Amino acid sequence: MKEAVVLLSGGIDSVTAMAIAMHEGYMVHALSFNYSQRHTIEIEKARDIASVMGVKKHLVLDINLGAIGGSALTDSIAVPKDREAADMMGAIPATYVPARNTIFLSCALAWAEALGIFDIFIGVHAQDYSGYPDCRPEYIKAFEQMANLAIKAAVEGQGRVRIHAPLLYLSKAEIIRRGIALGVDFSLTHSCYDPAPDGKACGRCDSCRFRLKGFAAAGLHDPIPYQEL
Amino acid sequence: MKEAVVLLSGGIDSVTAMAIAMHEGYMVHALSFNYSQRHTIEIEKARDIASVMGVKKHLVLDINLGAIGGSALTDSIAVPKDREAADMMGAIPATYVPARNTIFLSCALAWAEALGIFDIFIGVHAQDYSGYPDCRPEYIKAFEQMANLAIKAAVEGQGRVRIHAPLLYLSKAEIIRRGIALGVDFSLTHSCYDPAPDGKACGRCDSCRFRLKGFAAAGLHDPIPYQEL
Repeated sequence: MKEAVVLLSGGIDSVTAMAIAMHEGYMVHALSFNYSQRHTIEIEKARDIASVMGVKKHLVLDINLGAIGGSALTDSIAVPKDREAADMMGAIPATYVPARNTIFLSCALAWAEALGIFDIFIGVHAQDYSGYPDCRPEYIKAFEQMANLAIKAAVEGQGRVRIHAPLLYLSKAEIIRRGIALGVDFSLTHSCYDPAPDGKACGRCDSCRFRLKGFAAAGLHDPIPYQEL
Repeated sequence: MKEAVVLLSGGIDSVTAMAIAMHEGYMVHALSFNYSQRHTIEIEKARDIASVMGVKKHLVLDINLGAIGGSALTDSIAVPKDREAADMMGAIPATYVPARNTIFLSCALAWAEALGIFDIFIGVHAQDYSGYPDCRPEYIKAFEQMANLAIKAAVEGQGRVRIHAPLLYLSKAEIIRRGIALGVDFSLTHSCYDPAPDGKACGRCDSCRFRLKGFAAAGLHDPIPYQEL
């Protein structure tokens, strides 16, 4: 059976990317990160999802990106709230984490190499939250080219790494519809950057707003609980 | 004053690369990793070196590559000993750590981005221990291309990342001579993959053997202590 490493944050996109990998026949090794994000609840959600969806192995890797800083997700910088769509699509926001996808993909590459796997899935899309640079098609292509020079197989010729980004050209509503069609239980997912201590989503950060707009555009109800606004 | 992030393992190559960066006028932010390597003593050596050489900041990032496995440096796989030069230059050895330089450079990229720095130094050389794939010039170039699509500055246009690998075309003996010329105190460095509990180098792993051959070829005495063989 063919196998893949899937980056699993516990949000809508990564879970749908994982469902697509499984639908394509891959046995999945899911990789999550405890990177000192303020929304560590997503790691617990990722564990639940990995268990329910039947991955072969789920690895949670610790890396303290808080020591690097520079982001509202790991520092004491405020998470932007109540922004309109036009603002969200403009400048790169404070929730951008420096080089996060590059670090995550590099770790996925390392694990794939250790396992003898050549297929890596990541749930980025080009319309991603607020234009993060490391979600663009040209970035994914450049990472794949680098990866194919970085590993032993690049020298010894056993195979080529493929970075699969099956959501690249989908809108949030399309991703949600695709996930539903594949049987994803979105009640298990978490998207909020700034959840309450009980884990409830704020409904006001960019990630919540994109999520809520996505469900509305798909004509579906978002099954997770939100704080009273 | 111009600034750079330098990957500092505590070995001969990274310390010499750091000395070159300083000689070129960069104020240095040194980055080391506690990655569950069996030779954690190198982290203490890196701390001493960073202090003696006067870096602006030294960050030691924790990342548990032992959970990923696949290497004699992080697993219970035996470190090869007493290999001849011909063997060392052949197949990629058990001490190769999957995608390690990619992970290290990605973290350096993240830190550089958080600090607003565009220059990153790494002490790889193409004749590096036993042909690791992620020490080759074409790999370094591909990483730089990827990096320039990955970060905010790639979208917002403030600058371009440069990965400096000033040792790329030097032999071990040339690196040692260059380090000496720049005033590096090699008694502070550590290279051994499998040191004794007291920190003494084994003198028999590939890394020790390349180091000893390098000093011999440079006509110099290696100032670090070795175990009695």
